[in-house]
Order: sequence, then C-alpha cells, then structure tokens
Amino acid sequence: MSATTQSEISVRGRAAARAIRSASTDVRDAALASIAARLEADAAAILAANAQDVAAAVADGTSAALVDRLTLNGERLAALSQAVRDVAALADPVGRVIDDRRLHNGLELSKVRVPIGRVLVVYEARPNVTVDVAALCIKSGNVALLRGSASAKHTNAALSAAVRGGLADAGLPEDIVIPIEGSRDDLGELVSDASAADIVVPRGGEALKDFLLEKSRIPVLAAAGGICHVYLDRDANAEMAVAITMNAKVQRPGVCNAAETLLVHADRTDLLQPVLGALREAGVELRGDERTRAAIDFEINAATEADWDAEYLDLILAVRVVDDLDAALDHIDQHSTGHSEAIVTDSLEASRVFTDSVDSACVYVNASTRFTDGGEYGMGAEVGNSTARLHVRGPIGLEDLTTTKYVVIGTGQIRG
Amino acid sequence: MSATTQSEISVRGRAAARAIRSASTDVRDAALASIAARLEADAAAILAANAQDVAAAVADGTSAALVDRLTLNGERLAALSQAVRDVAALADPVGRVIDDRRLHNGLELSKVRVPIGRVLVVYEARPNVTVDVAALCIKSGNVALLRGSASAKHTNAALSAAVRGGLADAGLPEDIVIPIEGSRDDLGELVSDASAADIVVPRGGEALKDFLLEKSRIPVLAAAGGICHVYLDRDANAEMAVAITMNAKVQRPGVCNAAETLLVHADRTDLLQPVLGALREAGVELRGDERTRAAIDFEINAATEADWDAEYLDLILAVRVVDDLDAALDHIDQHSTGHSEAIVTDSLEASRVFTDSVDSACVYVNASTRFTDGGEYGMGAEVGNSTARLHVRGPIGLEDLTTTKYVVIGTGQIRG
Repeated sequence: MSATTQSEISVRGRAAARAIRSASTDVRDAALASIAARLEADAAAILAANAQDVAAAVADGTSAALVDRLTLNGERLAALSQAVRDVAALADPVGRVIDDRRLHNGLELSKVRVPIGRVLVVYEARPNVTVDVAALCIKSGNVALLRGSASAKHTNAALSAAVRGGLADAGLPEDIVIPIEGSRDDLGELVSDASAADIVVPRGGEALKDFLLEKSRIPVLAAAGGICHVYLDRDANAEMAVAITMNAKVQRPGVCNAAETLLVHADRTDLLQPVLGALREAGVELRGDERTRAAIDFEINAATEADWDAEYLDLILAVRVVDDLDAALDHIDQHSTGHSEAIVTDSLEASRVFTDSVDSACVYVNASTRFTDGGEYGMGAEVGNSTARLHVRGPIGLEDLTTTKYVVIGTGQIRG
Repeated sequence: MSATTQSEISVRGRAAARAIRSASTDVRDAALASIAARLEADAAAILAANAQDVAAAVADGTSAALVDRLTLNGERLAALSQAVRDVAALADPVGRVIDDRRLHNGLELSKVRVPIGRVLVVYEARPNVTVDVAALCIKSGNVALLRGSASAKHTNAALSAAVRGGLADAGLPEDIVIPIEGSRDDLGELVSDASAADIVVPRGGEALKDFLLEKSRIPVLAAAGGICHVYLDRDANAEMAVAITMNAKVQRPGVCNAAETLLVHADRTDLLQPVLGALREAGVELRGDERTRAAIDFEINAATEADWDAEYLDLILAVRVVDDLDAALDHIDQHSTGHSEAIVTDSLEASRVFTDSVDSACVYVNASTRFTDGGEYGMGAEVGNSTARLHVRGPIGLEDLTTTKYVVIGTGQIRG
C-alpha cells in the first residue's frame, strides 16, 4: 500500500468519524434500517458476486467446509439483514453517563460513553463479518475499516457497496464504512501507522493474530489461544463431571473456548473411568499422566510436558491427576492462556477459592467453558473476544466499542 | 540490561502478582500502614540518601527548580507517609461487581474488578512518585515496577527499601514493589518484551513518552501533549472570560492541562482588550491572528500556522478570532491533542453543542482546563493521565489499575 493510500485512509476515516460520532441514536438506527433494506434490494447482485468467489474457491480446491463458510444464499442473506435490524434494536451505548457527581467546588462532573473512533477489523473467509461489524460500528458511533480476505473479495465488495449505499440513503457519509484491500504486506504497513485507526480487532486464526500483535502500532484487541482447563474437584458431582468435560472438549473442538486439559483431584480418580470412557467413545485421543493411566481399565497415550502447553483445537485432551485444589491452581497458573477455566464441585468453599484465584477472562463453576461468547453472555452480538488485560477482557460487545470522556460544567471555577 | 535480568523481572513480577492479587483488602491496607510506619522509622536514612542525590545535583549545576523537586525534608517525608495512609483509606476497587445477571439458562454471570497485574511506572526526578505509585499499586492488588531517574537513585533506593520492608512486615512478598535501574537503552530493552509488565505509565516529559510509545510492546498509558483550547463564545460572560483564560494560561504554564490557544467568537472581539490586557500584564507573550491584532490597542506578535499546533508549556498564548462556534469546533478538531478544552458561554445550546462535539478526554463549560487532575476529580490520587482511547481516558485513578473477569456460576449447564 502506498503512503498516499495510507494517509488517505487516515484522512477519510477521521472525517467520517466526526460525522458518525455526532449522529443521534435515531439517525444511526435509521441508517441501519436503510442498510437492511439495501441488502434485500441488492440481493441479486450480492449473490452473483458471491457466486464468483465460490466458483474461484472451488476451482482452487478449497475445502468443502471453507467453501460452505464463504457461500451466501437467499436465506443467509435474509439472516444478515435481520442481524442488522437486531443490532439497531440494541440499547445505544453512546451517551450513557457512567459516573456523575458534584465536586466540592460545585463543578458538575460526568463521565460519558463516546465512540472510540475508527475500528479496523481484519477477518477471514466469512462474508457475514462485513455486515455484522459494520452494523455494530455504526450502532456505536464508530467508523468501520473492513479488511476481508481476498477469497471473498467480490462478495465483500458487493456487501460493502450495499452498506455504503444504505449510509448515503440515511444522509450519512459513505466513508463510515471503508473497505480495505491489499496484501498481507500492505496490511502490515497500514497497521504500522498508529494514526490509521484507533483499534484493530483480528477475527481469524492464530497466524493473523500473531502477525498483528507483531506489526501493529495500533492497539490490538485479541484473544490469545485458549488453553482452557476443566478441573474435577474432590467434591465434583459425577454426572456433571462427565457432561461438562464432554461438552467442553467435544461439542466444537476447533474453537478457543474448548477445553484442552482435564485436571482431576487425586481423591477422585474414580471419575476418570466414566469421564475418559465417554470421551474415548466420542473419538477423543487421550494423553494422561502416570496416575491417570493407572486409574482406568483401558490404554491411553502418555502425556509429556509439552501436552500441558498444547492448544490442540482438535479431538485430543491432556489429562492429569493433581494432589488437590492448590495443585490444580498451580497448574492453571503456569499453563493457562487466561481464556476460560472451569471447576466442577459441590463445595462452596472450593468454588470460591477457584473463582478468586484463577486469573482468566472467564471462570466457570459447574458449567462448560464453551459459554465464553458474546451471544451466550446476552450481549446481543460480539465483535470478537479478548484476553487483553486492558479495556476489555472476554467477549467484545457493543459497549466495548466505546471510550469515555469527562464533561465538566462549572460556573466560572478556576484552580487555586 | 541482560536477558537474564529481564526474564528475572518477569518471573519475580509474576510470582509477586499472584501473591498480591490473592491478598484481602485488610491485608493490603495493613501493608500500607506498615509502609507508612517504616517511612517514619527510616526517616534519617532516607533523608541522608536524599542529601547525597541533592549534593550531586547541585554539583552538576542542576536548576534550582529541579533541585527543589528532588529535595526531601522532614515535612515532605511526613506528607509522604500521610499520603500512604490516605491511599489505604480509599475504597478498594478490587472485587467490585460491575455487572451481575442471570442468563436465560440459569447461569449466574458477574463481571468483577480484578488487579491488572504488573504496572511499570517510569518517572523523572520527583522521589515522591516512588511511594505514591507503590501505594496505589498495593491498594489495587498490583505489583509496582518502579523505574526512577538516576538523579534520584539513592533516594529511590532508600524509599524502595522502606516500602519493601513494610510489605515484609505485613507478611507479603517484598517483590510486590520492584525497583528497576539501568540506562535508557536498558529500559528500551525491558519494554520491548511484552511479558515484562502488563502496562507502562510514563510520568515525565514528552521525550520519555515518545520513547516508550516507540519502543514498548507493553501497552502504554500516556497523555499526549496538551494543546488545550479555551473558546470564548458569543454569549461569554466577560468576567469569567478573563478569569478562566488567565487561570488556564498563567496559574501553572508548564503542565499539560494549561491552555495554549485562545479562540474568540467574531462577535465578541470586545473581550480581547480585557482578556489579553490581563494576560499581557501577567507576562504572557501573545501571538494573534489579523482580527485579534486589529481589536486591541496594543501591539502583539503575529501568529503563524505553526502556532496553532504548538504546545508552549510556557507563558505564550496563540489567539485567533473565529467566525462562530462551528469554526471553533473545526479549529479544535484539527489542532487539539484531545486533552482538555473549555468553552466560556451563558448559552445552554452552545454549551451542549460544545460538549457533544469536542472529542477530548475532558471538556469544560465555564471552568478552567487546569482542573484535569485525579485529585481535583475526587479520585483521591492519580497514577498519571491518559489521552489513550482504550481503557482509561483522562486522569488514571485507582479503579483504572484494575481489569475485569467474568465469574459464571452454573448448575451443570452445557452449551447446546
């Protein structure tokens, strides 16, 4: 990307940010309604563009799963329009007063939510992200800089055109949504300029995240890989132990909130036979330590030290017997990526120690780690997920696309 | 700094972070009481160490103002102990539940404030920062990594020793406060390692901030330079116009919340004579545009384009007549660093447009920009100030040294 293009993105983005941050809730919601209508009106053009991308992907020998993620049809497009209307129906986070007090000298101080400014989202094949993220940014008064993948370029261009058309229909600048093209190198150059955007959110694999964390001078909100733990406590309920471990490992093994390691209290090795038996039947490869292997009546692989630090994202589970809750906490402290961890216990005391001590974004008692998700948390929608320790930790919702400003109203006060 | 030392800081910091984040409010407050007592008990040793630094500074020909900032005496040391006790008396931000709801499936979700972890503060001559920051970090359950300046090295060593002794007295690890030495290059190396700390806060001049923003892989919370504006609206009260402009420029011109540019509505050039007259009498060098210079009966320098982007940090003020409120907003949008801006007006409408449109950390109506300060805002103390758009914007208080985690309590829920 040439320097001119980069500084052009900065200038266009800043101008559009000023327009959208001044737009009222009603104007922003009207824009979302126009966008939903445009997506419906332009359906034929969008599906034709998508057919081009799908044909190219098939010709390239892309896997059936990826081709499916790339494919739009009438039903999926209708769901996209509906998603835009759903975002419009969410409560507006902008303008919310989160602190309000009168100071000793009579100054009225309030802390108010305002848009962050320009949100750059970098995503892979799924074209629905183009529309979802644009809608969330518009709702929260932000400019969306959308950098989709080359494999969806015709689809993304058609969707962006519809979104920009909807903005224009509502009397807002089209540049509130700016599609960004170019190579991975171009992206690296773009994010090396701190003025290009106010925040970058990667939605894609580990390689993309690492690339952005390495290159970006713009703050990156991302989730580290999820080495998530399930710990079966001395007071674990056996039925829950099976159900939660199975769900955390098997329901969708390729995602970051799936469990990778199972820890079991040394007094409860009786749980290993039913839990590991169920996992094995579901096709999970088990890798256990000595004590685990001694406690069951079938053969499993031996775990090595490397297994405690592995994010398999696959039907593989590392299993370790620990002396007690403290030993489980030590293991988690050393090996967790700070994403999601669960304890299964009937002990109030153990649940309290676990939730107090585990320093991860999401800590569960008697529930599956798979719940870490903006939709599941009742946020309505999510932009991504974060294991950062600043600004937002866990699912990134609409409110997390805002910052704050202080508004201070006086009657002539000066500082003494 | 050798790689060993760096990884040692990471290891020591992480171990101490685990200890302090598990300490109860009572334990943390007891540690602060022990520290205050130690500072009093060790007064002679601290003052002797300080005398060494002061003697070296005087021998080096350091300016009287800087020598004064460096100097401790009995009274200042007593104020430091008192400041530690004052921090202990603040409300504990840790463990505060900021969101709490039951999800449709019965999961009890709460969002709880927890310590960030390890806070690296880089500061210049003032040794009080050593104690202030240590106290704020301990109160909020964080580890403090303190990198003071070489000019205060004996004082900082003595103060750190007292603080660490106080921690030990309270049964906590001394490494909850870790003093860091070394050259500017060593600092660059340290912050290039993202695992060394969770956050960096510079407290010092522009060069230090720029250095950290350039080198750090750890998130930096800092205030950009403050090109703060005072705008005198068409409906400005003349007396307030003089008092607020004077206070914002003259009361302490060397700080980032001092005004650098005065904007005046074209219908109120009558204000220029009294406002600029008062400033001139106070020794302020004025640099005005054409219309400003035509409106007053004395000579001032002509402003150039560069003046609108200057942070003088001195008794100099740029002055411009603008057509109307919109023109003032345009000027601020182009030239502000997003720190603090004020309008003087009796118009409710103008005040509303100004506070809605100005996108700065702190926006004032009929009050001086000089109020941007954690103490003034009733936060009890501040770690620094931020114009970042993520995490915290404005004064960085105790609560801003926390992040959140989700605690989710279930009864065996799994994801469908």
